[in-house]
Amino acid sequence: MDNWRQRLYIIIFHTDTPAGQRFDNWLLLTILASLVVVMLDSVSEVHIQYGAWLKGLEWLFTTLFAIEYGLRLYCSPKPLRYAFSFYGLVDLLAVLPAILALLFADAQYLLIIRVIRMLRVFRVLKLSPYLRQANFLLTALRGSRQKITVFFASIATLVTVFGTLMYVIEGPGNGFTSIPKGIYWAVVTLTTVGFGDIVPKTVLGQALSTLVMITGYSIIAVPTGIFTAELASAMRGSDQHKHSCPSCAKDFHEPGAAFCNRCGNPLYPRRSASD
Amino acid sequence: MDNWRQRLYIIIFHTDTPAGQRFDNWLLLTILASLVVVMLDSVSEVHIQYGAWLKGLEWLFTTLFAIEYGLRLYCSPKPLRYAFSFYGLVDLLAVLPAILALLFADAQYLLIIRVIRMLRVFRVLKLSPYLRQANFLLTALRGSRQKITVFFASIATLVTVFGTLMYVIEGPGNGFTSIPKGIYWAVVTLTTVGFGDIVPKTVLGQALSTLVMITGYSIIAVPTGIFTAELASAMRGSDQHKHSCPSCAKDFHEPGAAFCNRCGNPLYPRRSASD
Amino acid sequence: MDNWRQRLYIIIFHTDTPAGQRFDNWLLLTILASLVVVMLDSVSEVHIQYGAWLKGLEWLFTTLFAIEYGLRLYCSPKPLRYAFSFYGLVDLLAVLPAILALLFADAQYLLIIRVIRMLRVFRVLKLSPYLRQANFLLTALRGSRQKITVFFASIATLVTVFGTLMYVIEGPGNGFTSIPKGIYWAVVTLTTVGFGDIVPKTVLGQALSTLVMITGYSIIAVPTGIFTAELASAMRGSDQHKHSCPSCAKDFHEPGAAFCNRCGNPLYPRRSASD
Amino acid sequence: MDNWRQRLYIIIFHTDTPAGQRFDNWLLLTILASLVVVMLDSVSEVHIQYGAWLKGLEWLFTTLFAIEYGLRLYCSPKPLRYAFSFYGLVDLLAVLPAILALLFADAQYLLIIRVIRMLRVFRVLKLSPYLRQANFLLTALRGSRQKITVFFASIATLVTVFGTLMYVIEGPGNGFTSIPKGIYWAVVTLTTVGFGDIVPKTVLGQALSTLVMITGYSIIAVPTGIFTAELASAMRGSDQHKHSCPSCAKDFHEPGAAFCNRCGNPLYPRRSASD
Repeated sequence: MDNWRQRLYIIIFHTDTPAGQRFDNWLLLTILASLVVVMLDSVSEVHIQYGAWLKGLEWLFTTLFAIEYGLRLYCSPKPLRYAFSFYGLVDLLAVLPAILALLFADAQYLLIIRVIRMLRVFRVLKLSPYLRQANFLLTALRGSRQKITVFFASIATLVTVFGTLMYVIEGPGNGFTSIPKGIYWAVVTLTTVGFGDIVPKTVLGQALSTLVMITGYSIIAVPTGIFTAELASAMRGSDQHKHSCPSCAKDFHEPGAAFCNRCGNPLYPRRSASD
Repeated sequence: MDNWRQRLYIIIFHTDTPAGQRFDNWLLLTILASLVVVMLDSVSEVHIQYGAWLKGLEWLFTTLFAIEYGLRLYCSPKPLRYAFSFYGLVDLLAVLPAILALLFADAQYLLIIRVIRMLRVFRVLKLSPYLRQANFLLTALRGSRQKITVFFASIATLVTVFGTLMYVIEGPGNGFTSIPKGIYWAVVTLTTVGFGDIVPKTVLGQALSTLVMITGYSIIAVPTGIFTAELASAMRGSDQHKHSCPSCAKDFHEPGAAFCNRCGNPLYPRRSASD
Repeated sequence: MDNWRQRLYIIIFHTDTPAGQRFDNWLLLTILASLVVVMLDSVSEVHIQYGAWLKGLEWLFTTLFAIEYGLRLYCSPKPLRYAFSFYGLVDLLAVLPAILALLFADAQYLLIIRVIRMLRVFRVLKLSPYLRQANFLLTALRGSRQKITVFFASIATLVTVFGTLMYVIEGPGNGFTSIPKGIYWAVVTLTTVGFGDIVPKTVLGQALSTLVMITGYSIIAVPTGIFTAELASAMRGSDQHKHSCPSCAKDFHEPGAAFCNRCGNPLYPRRSASD
Repeated sequence: MDNWRQRLYIIIFHTDTPAGQRFDNWLLLTILASLVVVMLDSVSEVHIQYGAWLKGLEWLFTTLFAIEYGLRLYCSPKPLRYAFSFYGLVDLLAVLPAILALLFADAQYLLIIRVIRMLRVFRVLKLSPYLRQANFLLTALRGSRQKITVFFASIATLVTVFGTLMYVIEGPGNGFTSIPKGIYWAVVTLTTVGFGDIVPKTVLGQALSTLVMITGYSIIAVPTGIFTAELASAMRGSDQHKHSCPSCAKDFHEPGAAFCNRCGNPLYPRRSASD
């Protein structure tokens, strides 16, 4: 019996056996199908015609995911640790909304949370290179965290000031009905989205919004520059082999280096017979 | 006879003889003209007045391209290999739609596929430097393939979650008639396009879309950073320092290397005072 | 008495004691609350229902800030220097508009200037790393000042020329009622904001605006490139290689340097075989 | 007499004397004023009220510029060379449109060409650093010319294909009245401008435009990456002193270097007494 449980564990949790690979492929397809069902059900023409069918399918998927969740808990060697891991919580969230939907009408849309389960796709693809790349991106983001905080604080200040100024200049008559609305407009404009639902009509307002637009157009350079510089330095660091030269302390060397190319001393001194 | 076929081959397939150059120039002009004809024919005022003329021209161009395709098949030393090459298929596609248009009314617009033939323009310009540059770009893209996959997967997840949330918050009354529509809106907003055909009207919706816009405005830094870092490293990689080590003959070294990092001997012996 | 004044000084001006930290936290919360009150008061539904309450709160906050300003003046060892420092002026501006609002109806919105006081948030967070990062950004901006001036001068010229051309081409009938309006449109388009309030309708106008859009889409690369290159060099500059030359004591060298480029002696003598 | 002509030449053409500086300052102010007059005259309310005044001012400025042009021709040592130089032609263009305006009503707007004269502003500011920075930008642009050609060729192809597809999918009923209009829409969308004057209405059209938007959002990385990489390499190149080491051929050295820091040999060998 225990043997069976372990085989199940390998199928469900590992992807390096053919059975495990097949399981994960089917799981991804099922998740995708359940997402499509939720989406289709939200289109009113489809809902009217096939509503009952889709509801049935939704319950089928929910049952499948509930069974899967149960099996994962059953066969995992450390069920509690799984239950509170990131994937464990996501797996639970894939089941819960359907039950909540019995009580609250809109809760079914929470099913879209299943999209997060799609992250498993990286486990089906050859895993490690993708994770390593995602790690690069995260390292770069973490390295630039403080610069980015400074940047967002400046953006928030700019947007508040510009939004208030536009509210004072344009006034409720031109769609700027309150300061929060002005700030919303400032965000729409500064990020160069430009919906056009609220638009300056006075000459002064247009002059100011010219300033906002030029600002937004230019300071996009700041997060881009920060991230690029961090990423380039993260990638350069990993290209080379980190091992301090015992003679001159040069830190990075080509992967196959035997001698330091700055001072010519061996990187890994041979122990003499007398050592 | 065979001699004539070979001369034709050189004119049609090569660009390094004056005749070949002239042939390619005329071919490009003809392709451009045929594109303009297709475009003009789609403007209804022009179609009403000059429809018959344009149809005639279209058939003329199609005949010309058909003849060219025949000649290419005839004079190519390996006709099958040409027929299934990239350019061979594109040349065929430049002729087919006109014939399909006899059966299906809209098929003529497929003629716009001829725009791909314009890629021949790089053969008329001095070829190699452009290809080398295109290669740089492709190398950079290939090098960042996995990072870009991670990026697009995140975008897809973000867009699905935001689109569903907006559908739940705003509802069909404000234009968000279904989840797919919400996702369409999320893409329009996240990419900072901002058509303004669907726009949040509730306070909560505007607050959430502020978040979407700031996200879209900031994460543009990610593909830019990835591509820039890759391109910089691709360009740096091409100016690796080539200098054979006088002791062990290792060929490539870091630009600043003074000693060979394989054998530890100096790469550039110092001139003795007696030199 | 003087002792009390000094303790007050430490609480108000320093953040490294628990009391000072607590004071700054409360101050930030108060500033945030006063900002929210100003914003809420601008929403007409809220203003009608709770206008009197909000006015009361506004006066409460103004009184608090006036007291704080008085205390700062009182306990600062150099009151005049504080009064004319950046923070001193901002603190004064946080109080003044409320008094002006007694005379001019709209002056209350100037209260939003208090948002600048939020910059104190960096004093509450661990200060120095943020300042150092902000310094990096400022260094990069200062280093690229001239390039950026050239860039903005080009943008201003482009926008004026395009705006005038569009005014001549489209004319007042299509919304381009004057040259300044044309310039406003050119800014909206070049920065890729694209409100859609003014839109080209003639074929020639659409062709020209295609050019403007492609230009705007491409030259965003210029400020980004400038800032990224400057930032990368500012970050690289900070990890210059420090190692005193054993012969001439020159302190800084290129990262890969093997020999001192002032005296020509090796920076890292090779260990002899007998070592 | 000749002496007077030479003094005039120094005042008008040079900026390094106080008189020359003053002349250029006044010239810039006059050009700016003449631009403002043209702009104001295009605002219909202003035109109705002050049209006659503005016309008078316009003629005054035109007369001033004509006199200036005459003086430049008169005092230049090589009048023909000036007349056909870039600045000479621009100076002529600043006068001509006013004369053309006597014949054609709209020609007066060509006066906006005077904006190009504003480029003289770089001569008044300390000239050389700005020119050097502009040179950096131009070097970077020239270095990436071929990559940028490849990029624009791809954009043109993409836009043509997408525009035609949208015309076929959406059709004239939804605003896509012709292929050129479809291409206009594709440019508006790909560049993330998003006016919203033409908008996809069918589900298939919205799906395709999602693809266009994501493409546009992503490939902005390409010109940015190209330009940044080129600019960084242009700036790095200028940081250092180019002089090939006679022993090891290392190309770039610190400005004060006397010895090559790679091979330790002198960069500038002393001539021995026997030379």
